[in-house]
Parts: sequence; structure tokens; C-alpha cells
Amino acid sequence: MNSAPQNAALEDVKNSLAGEGSPSVAVIGLGMMGRALAAAFLAGGRTTAVWNRTPGRAGELVAAGAREAASAEAAVRAADLVVVCVRDYEAVHEALDAAAEAGALQGRVLVNLTSGTSQQGRDTAEWASAQGAAYLDGAIMMTPPGIGDINTVVLYGGAPAVYAEHAATLALLGGGSRHLGADPGVASVYDVAMLGLMWSTFNGFLHGVALLGADGIPAKEFLPLAKYWLGAIESFVELYAGQIDAGDFAAVDATLETQLPPIEHLVEESRARGVDTTLPEYTKAAIEAAIGRGHALDSYARIVEHFRG
Amino acid sequence: MNSAPQNAALEDVKNSLAGEGSPSVAVIGLGMMGRALAAAFLAGGRTTAVWNRTPGRAGELVAAGAREAASAEAAVRAADLVVVCVRDYEAVHEALDAAAEAGALQGRVLVNLTSGTSQQGRDTAEWASAQGAAYLDGAIMMTPPGIGDINTVVLYGGAPAVYAEHAATLALLGGGSRHLGADPGVASVYDVAMLGLMWSTFNGFLHGVALLGADGIPAKEFLPLAKYWLGAIESFVELYAGQIDAGDFAAVDATLETQLPPIEHLVEESRARGVDTTLPEYTKAAIEAAIGRGHALDSYARIVEHFRG
Repeated sequence: MNSAPQNAALEDVKNSLAGEGSPSVAVIGLGMMGRALAAAFLAGGRTTAVWNRTPGRAGELVAAGAREAASAEAAVRAADLVVVCVRDYEAVHEALDAAAEAGALQGRVLVNLTSGTSQQGRDTAEWASAQGAAYLDGAIMMTPPGIGDINTVVLYGGAPAVYAEHAATLALLGGGSRHLGADPGVASVYDVAMLGLMWSTFNGFLHGVALLGADGIPAKEFLPLAKYWLGAIESFVELYAGQIDAGDFAAVDATLETQLPPIEHLVEESRARGVDTTLPEYTKAAIEAAIGRGHALDSYARIVEHFRG
Repeated sequence: MNSAPQNAALEDVKNSLAGEGSPSVAVIGLGMMGRALAAAFLAGGRTTAVWNRTPGRAGELVAAGAREAASAEAAVRAADLVVVCVRDYEAVHEALDAAAEAGALQGRVLVNLTSGTSQQGRDTAEWASAQGAAYLDGAIMMTPPGIGDINTVVLYGGAPAVYAEHAATLALLGGGSRHLGADPGVASVYDVAMLGLMWSTFNGFLHGVALLGADGIPAKEFLPLAKYWLGAIESFVELYAGQIDAGDFAAVDATLETQLPPIEHLVEESRARGVDTTLPEYTKAAIEAAIGRGHALDSYARIVEHFRG
């Protein structure tokens, strides 16, 4: 990259903003998330080129020091590290195929933060390899306003050496970021596992809000108790993780047997208020099936076998 | 109570253990939870009588200063505050009906910590009233080892004045205890709402464990990320409670529309690993239905309408 005079000049521009040796960055896709990513790189002093399929999204970023590239290829060529965050993997190819065909990805690192499946991550890693690019597949576990925070987590899969080389730059997006393994699909599996935990927790909370709301109790009355309870739930989850890995499900506190009457009460209270009973009926069936298999004295961790199918 | 000489003598015994004016307590039912309750009253210096249908459970409590009563009636007559925690409401009556018929509940406060429905709580309040007893219906939001902790929550419904009079004694069971209202059924509704949140969160966690486990990733690898994520989920839950009470569901971060691709990924990753897809399919259908009603740009809080039915 440094052999031609124009590239040397570009290096000078980069080094005026960032320390010598800091990789320059391109952000492809300027949705709400892409803009937050670019802003975090700029805040960290990285030379940042930006590009979006439809123009007009880069105004604030340019004011903050970003260079708006005229094409995806120009953005890619301006950077060592190419970060793409678009709607889906099809949009990744719409954005990058022309640049790749022109050889622009050669020798660069492509960091794909687009949400997808593990198979899409693996396929894109192969494609990137064929373009001569190193590849990291990431999942952002935060909404745009949290990008750049010290605790924010972005998960990565891909070659460990590639992650290690760029960890300092990627940490600008979230201080809690981590590399999960060499498999470029691994971040996507964690992503959906964590989102599944999120939706399930939301559903439990909203079910409770609906139940109490039927008795005229507002959500704000439930909130402090729900927050207290989530703390207790977290400590059970910690206990259960150990039980599952050890394969020893003997309850040290609440047996499955003792959970059957309250789950029946939940079904009954829900039905009495016209609240959807699908979730408690599902939980009840899973508990009953585990008891039927002889696990009455085990903890709720035993229900992992239900999910394993 | 203090008019007869034997009652005066009993008062002397009580006052030797507790400050003058502290109510004496009876604990009916010595399962794991009942024993924890009695131990917490003893630790707080309350004169404590205990009784269990089948004898032989009181040894450690007697060693700690409890008096084992020969009958439920004797336990009730020894106490100002009668705390009952048994298998179900039927067992409450099996334990207390004879004592009630003998007039022993007259002038006492019955605190029922047995798990049941709100209707059972209201029915038992009426029954207690007919026996001349004041009544509080409670729900213990903790496992036995946590009884007596500063943060442990026991929820109560019933006459506010009765709770206020005995709040100091009841706080010995859990420092985070609170009175929710005059309705003796209210604690049971909160109880199942909180347990529903718990089971849903457990299910989400176990689903994720099953998903990652299929790829050979142990639960302990998922745990730190799940814990981080539960913290983020809690902040969303706080946001959603405000949106629900305000009836304003406009997303400030993640719209329902943007959650459709990842829920589809969760279904797909689950199916590919033989993991049960019921929960993500349920969530997906709820999101799709809300989008179909024109709420694509709302937050997940809008799904509360799904639960309201």
C-alpha cells in the first residue's frame, strides 16, 4: 500500500489523526448502527472512510472528521480494516461485490458486523478468502447508543491472529468485546442464543405486566420487583450452568416437583384474566415431562434436555 | 391475653427472649421453608413456637430456642402472630381448622405464606375473618437458604394497619419485604408474575445452552455473556415499563421490524441443531402479528398487547 506516492500521502493524512501504525478504517453501511460504529472509530482517532449505498447519511460523520468515499471500492481502498454493517448478507454482497471484483479487498481485513446465521458467516469467510482478504465475523450485542461504551460487547469469530492484530481498534466499538474462536460462524450462534434469552425474558416480563395490568396494577409497580427478581434469577442461572456442565441436576434449593403447583397457579391466574397461557402451559408441560422421566427432585436445569430435543 | 395468671407467666417467658412488646410467633409447617422461617424469627429474638403435622422436624429449632407445641392449637395459643407455610391451601385448613373451631385464632394475626392463587388468598382472608383473626397473605420470593437476608423479598397483601403493626417482625424473614395493598389476593398475582418471568428467563437461557452445546460449547462459556446480557435486558425492561404505562411504544432503539431477521436466524439455527423451536416460533409469530397491525417501528414493549389477548 505504501509503494505509490499517492498512498504515501494518504498515510500522512492518516497519521495526522491517529498514532503511527493505527490501522485506518472504512465503514460500509450508514444505518443507525453503521453511523454509531464510524463515530466510535473517529472518537478513537482512527482515520475513517464511510460509504452508504444511498448518499446523504454521512453529514455528521464528515463534520466529525470522516471522509465520505465516492464508492464502496474507494472506501475499501482507503482502509486497512473494512467494517461492514448492513441489513443482511445479501446486502453485504450488493455493497462489496464490485469492489471485490476490482481486487480492492486484496490484503485487507474485512470485519462483517451484519446479523446473519453461522452458515452465512462461514460462507462469507470463504468468499473473503477468495478475494485475498482476512475475515472476522462479528455480532454487536448492543443498540447503537451503546456503541463505544466500556462495557459494550461485540462478539467475533475468525482467525485469532487477525483478531489479535486489530483488537485495539475493534475495542473502540465496545470495551467488553471478545474473540470466541476461529470458526467464523461462532459469533452468530452466540448472537441468537443471547437474543433468545432476551426475547424469552421480555416475554416473561410482558406476560407479568399483562397479568398485573388486568388487576389495574401499572408496569412501574412491577418494575422494581422484576429487577430484584432478575438479580435472583441470574444467581440461579449461574448455578444451573455448573449443573449442566457437570451433568448433575440434583436440586440444592427448588425441585421440579415443588414448581408444579405454582406453574399451575400461573396458568390459572392467566386464564382468569384472559392473558395468553401458551408460555406457562409450555413450561408446565416441560416440567411434567421431566418429572415423568423420574427427575422430580432435580432443579430446573434438567429442562435443558427438553430443549436439546 | 394477659388477664389469666398462666398467660402472665407466658408473657414472662416471651420477654426473657425478646424485647417487651415484640409479638410472639408460631410457625405452622416445618418443611424446608417453614424451618427457615422459624430460624429467622429465633435469630431475631422472637419467642417462637413451632408445629408440624408429622413430628420430628423441630430438633434443630428447639436447640435454637423454639418451643415445639403438642398441637397446632397449642402453637396458635402461644403466639400473637401465626405464620403458616405448608404445601397448599388445603393443607392450611388441615393444619388449622381444629384450632379455629376451638376459637384459638380469635384476636390473633394469621400470616399465610403458602403458595396459592389470588382467589384462595381472598377466600382464606374471609375464613380467617370469620374466626376472629386478622389476615395477611404473603408470597416468599426466595429459596429457604435466603430467608432472613437483608435483600430477600416477601410480598404481602391484606389490611395495611395489620402489616404496619407487624412489619418489624416480618422483616426478620427478608429485609426487602413489602406490602402491596389491602387485597389479600395481590401477593399471589405478583408471585406468579415474577415466577413467570423466572421460568421464561430460564427457558431462554436453557435454549441458548442447548444451541451452543450442540456446537460443543459448554454452559460456562455462555454464562459470562448471558450475565452481561441480562444486565442489558434489565435496562430494556425498565424502558419498556415506562412505554407501556405511557401507551407510547415508538422504538428509541430497536424496532420490531429489525428484530424479524434475527428471530428467523434463531429459528433456523435451532432447527439446524435439533433444538426445540417452539419458543422462537412463538416470538416470531408475535412480532409478525404486531407488524401486521402496523407496529413495525415500535419497540418490543408493543408485544404486551399479544399477552393481554
